[in-house]
Amino acid sequence: MNDTDRYILISADTHAGAELRAYRPYLEKKWHDDFDAWVAGMDEQAEVMREMMGPRSVGVDGDPAVDGNRNYDSARRLREMESDGMVAEVIFPNTQPPFAPRAGILFAAPPIGDSPEHRWAGLQAHNRWLADFCAEAPGRRAGVAQIMLANVEGSVAEIEWAREHGLFGGVLLPGAPPGSGVAPLYAPEYEPIWAACEDFGMPLNHHAGGGVPDFGPYYPAAMAMFMLEVTWWGHRALWHLMFSGVFERHPRLHYTTTETGSAWIVDTLAELDSFYDRMKAGGQGSEAIFGAATVAGLSLRPSEYFARQCHLGSSFLRPIECAMRHQIGVDHIMWGSDYPHIEGSYPYTRLHLRRTFAGVDPDEVARMVGGNAARVYGFDLDRLRPLADRLGPTVAEVAEPLPYTEVPEAAHKCPALAPQTQVSVP
Amino acid sequence: MNDTDRYILISADTHAGAELRAYRPYLEKKWHDDFDAWVAGMDEQAEVMREMMGPRSVGVDGDPAVDGNRNYDSARRLREMESDGMVAEVIFPNTQPPFAPRAGILFAAPPIGDSPEHRWAGLQAHNRWLADFCAEAPGRRAGVAQIMLANVEGSVAEIEWAREHGLFGGVLLPGAPPGSGVAPLYAPEYEPIWAACEDFGMPLNHHAGGGVPDFGPYYPAAMAMFMLEVTWWGHRALWHLMFSGVFERHPRLHYTTTETGSAWIVDTLAELDSFYDRMKAGGQGSEAIFGAATVAGLSLRPSEYFARQCHLGSSFLRPIECAMRHQIGVDHIMWGSDYPHIEGSYPYTRLHLRRTFAGVDPDEVARMVGGNAARVYGFDLDRLRPLADRLGPTVAEVAEPLPYTEVPEAAHKCPALAPQTQVSVP
Repeated sequence: MNDTDRYILISADTHAGAELRAYRPYLEKKWHDDFDAWVAGMDEQAEVMREMMGPRSVGVDGDPAVDGNRNYDSARRLREMESDGMVAEVIFPNTQPPFAPRAGILFAAPPIGDSPEHRWAGLQAHNRWLADFCAEAPGRRAGVAQIMLANVEGSVAEIEWAREHGLFGGVLLPGAPPGSGVAPLYAPEYEPIWAACEDFGMPLNHHAGGGVPDFGPYYPAAMAMFMLEVTWWGHRALWHLMFSGVFERHPRLHYTTTETGSAWIVDTLAELDSFYDRMKAGGQGSEAIFGAATVAGLSLRPSEYFARQCHLGSSFLRPIECAMRHQIGVDHIMWGSDYPHIEGSYPYTRLHLRRTFAGVDPDEVARMVGGNAARVYGFDLDRLRPLADRLGPTVAEVAEPLPYTEVPEAAHKCPALAPQTQVSVP
Repeated sequence: MNDTDRYILISADTHAGAELRAYRPYLEKKWHDDFDAWVAGMDEQAEVMREMMGPRSVGVDGDPAVDGNRNYDSARRLREMESDGMVAEVIFPNTQPPFAPRAGILFAAPPIGDSPEHRWAGLQAHNRWLADFCAEAPGRRAGVAQIMLANVEGSVAEIEWAREHGLFGGVLLPGAPPGSGVAPLYAPEYEPIWAACEDFGMPLNHHAGGGVPDFGPYYPAAMAMFMLEVTWWGHRALWHLMFSGVFERHPRLHYTTTETGSAWIVDTLAELDSFYDRMKAGGQGSEAIFGAATVAGLSLRPSEYFARQCHLGSSFLRPIECAMRHQIGVDHIMWGSDYPHIEGSYPYTRLHLRRTFAGVDPDEVARMVGGNAARVYGFDLDRLRPLADRLGPTVAEVAEPLPYTEVPEAAHKCPALAPQTQVSVP
C-alpha cells in the first residue's frame, strides 16, 4: 500500500436501536396497549436514573438532546461515523426492545408483565426496525438479529427471516448463565440454532454483557462484580460451544466474541489446548474418570477450531493488544469503535488508530480494520472502496505515532486512548 | 536448620467423613426413618456409578475394601499419614452428610425429600461426628465445620458450637453461585457469619468445588465445563468478599482458598489492584458512573487485604508454583496433600516434596509445609515437635532433587508428581 492509500474502515462493533416509541408500528395492534404502558414505565425508570446519576448514566438512549438519537438518527449517524473515517459497521442492539426489562441492578422487575410472548413480539419488532434502518445505507450496515434461546423453533425461523431481509451481521447469541432459566449453551437442544446459522451463512456473535448472570440488587457491590467479571462471562461461551462439539459439527459456522478484549485468547487457547491434550491422554487423578468421554467427539484441538472459524470483535484494540497480533492471529482481529458508547473511540477514532496501529505493516492494518470483517460478514469491499477513497484515514496518517502526552486534553476521558496497560480481568 | 532436622509437616487440605450409616447416632431419633431411606437411595446410586465407571469413580467413599475407610478409620488414617511424614491436618468434608444430594451431573435429584430441616440436621450430624473424630488425635486434626448460607442464624450458633467443641479448622464457606437459590457472597445478609468467624477466631475456608453452579445433566459436556471452570469458581469468592467490604469490616478474619492453585493469585491481585486504582481515580467510560461508589468503603487495595488476612491452601504445590513463592508471598502458602483423594500426593508425599521443594531455603520450606498453617489455624508446634522429630522428612531428604525421569513408574499416575507446567484454567 502507498502512503496516500486510504483504509476501508469497518467497525465490527457498533450499537443501534429505535427510540422506544418508534417500535410501535413494528408491533401488531394487539400489543399496542401493553406497549404504551411499558413505555410509560420505562420513562419513569429513566427519570429515576437521571436523578440519581445525571444524564450520561441512562445510556445513550436517555436524553436525545445530548446523544440519544445517535441510536436511530440515520443521517446523524452517517455524518458522525464518516467524520471518524468509517464507511461501514456491524450493528448490535442498544436500546431495549419492547417488553424487555431494563438491564442492571437498580431495577429488579420489568415495568410490565414479562410473558415470553411479549418478549418475542418485542424482539421481532427490533429485528424489523433494524432491517429498515440498515436498508437506509445499503451495504454499509450489517445488522445483527436477536433470537431467544427459550424459543428454538422461533429462533430458527427468525434466522431465516433475518437472512432474507438483509441482516447480514448474523445472529446475536444471548448468554445462558446459571440461574437464567434457560439451558446452558452446551445443551444439545440448541442444535437447530447452530445448524440454521451455518446453513444460512449467518455468523454467530456473542457480545460482552450478554452472558452475565443476575448480580442481584446489592448496590454497589454487584456493580463491582459486574465490572470485574463481565469479560469472563463473555469469554465463557467460546469453550461451551467448543467442548460440546458445535464447531466440530458445523465447520462453516463463524463465531465472533465481541468487546471482551483480545489478548486473553492467547493464554486461554493455550490452556484449552493443554486441557484437551490431557483429556486425550486419559487424564490424571479425578480427571481420568471422565477425560476420554469429554473430548471423544472432538477431532481438532481448541486452537485449531479457533483458527478455522472463530474471530474477535476487538473493540478499541489497545496498543499492547496490537503488539500481540501475531500470537492472536492477524486474520482473527476485527477492530471496532463501539459507537456510540462513551467507552468507544468516537469522535477520536483517527487519534485512536494512530495510538494503536502506528508502526504496523499497512497490509496487516487493512485486514484488522476492515478486511477481516468484510470476509466474516460479507461486506462488499468493491462497493465500499469509492466511499473509503473519500472518507478513510490514509496510510500515512495512521502511521504517525501519537504519544499519550500529545493526546488532546478533551480526549483524556476516552478509554480507547488511555495509556493503561491492563487488558483483562480475572 | 540443619540437614538432620525434620520438618513439621501439616497438610492444609485433607478430607474425611463418616461411613454413611455411622452418621445415624448423630441424628435425633425423629430423623432415623428418613435417614434409613436416604442411605438406601445412596447405596443404589453408588451401584449405578460403580457399574458405569468402576470402583474408583464413586470416590473414596465408594468401596471400603479398596479405600473407602480412609475417610473414617482413625487408625488407618494416622498410619498412612505418618508413613507419608505428616503429623497434622486440616480436615474438609468428603462424604455427603445425611440428606445431602449426591453432587455431580449424573444424579439430578437427591434420593429423598430435600427440606432445609433435613439438610440442617444432616450438616449438624457431620459436625458432631467430626468433633469426635478429631478428638481421637488431639491437636493433630483441625476439623472444618460446615454451615449453611440459607440459615444465617443457625450458622452463627453452629460456629460458636464448633469453636467450643474443638473444630479449630474453622468454617467451610459454601459457594453461592447464580441459580443456587441463596444470595451471592457479597450480599449484606451474611454479615453475622463473617462477624462470628472473626469473633470466635474461626478461619473461613473456601474449597475448590464448593462454589460451582449446577452444570446440568449434559454428560459429558457438563463434565468438561466442571473441570475447566472449577478453579475460577473457587477463586471468585475472594473478590466477592473483598469488594463487599468483608475484609475491611473484619480485619482479624482469616480467609483461605484451598485447592484452587497458587500461581493465579499474582496476576489476579495485580488485576484487582488495577481495577481498584481505576475506580478510585473515578473510572473512565461507563465505569465512571459507578466507579467511586464501588470502592468508597475500601481503605486498602486488594493486595493489601490479601497480605493482611488471606491465605492459599496450596494442595500439592507444583515446582513452577514454588518458584513463584516470593511473588505469591511465602507466608501465604500452606502446603496440602489432599489425602485421601487420588489426585493428592499420598502415598508419594516424600517424593512430591523433593520435586517441589528441593533447592529451596529450608526456613521457607518449614513455613510453607507447616509453620503457616500452624499460625493460621492455631496448631501448637511445641506439641507437634516430638512427633515430627520421629516422623517428619529431614531437611536433607527434601533437599535432594528428584527429576521426573527418576519418579518410580508406579507413581506416574499421581498428578502431584506430574511434569506438567499448566497451573491454572481460564
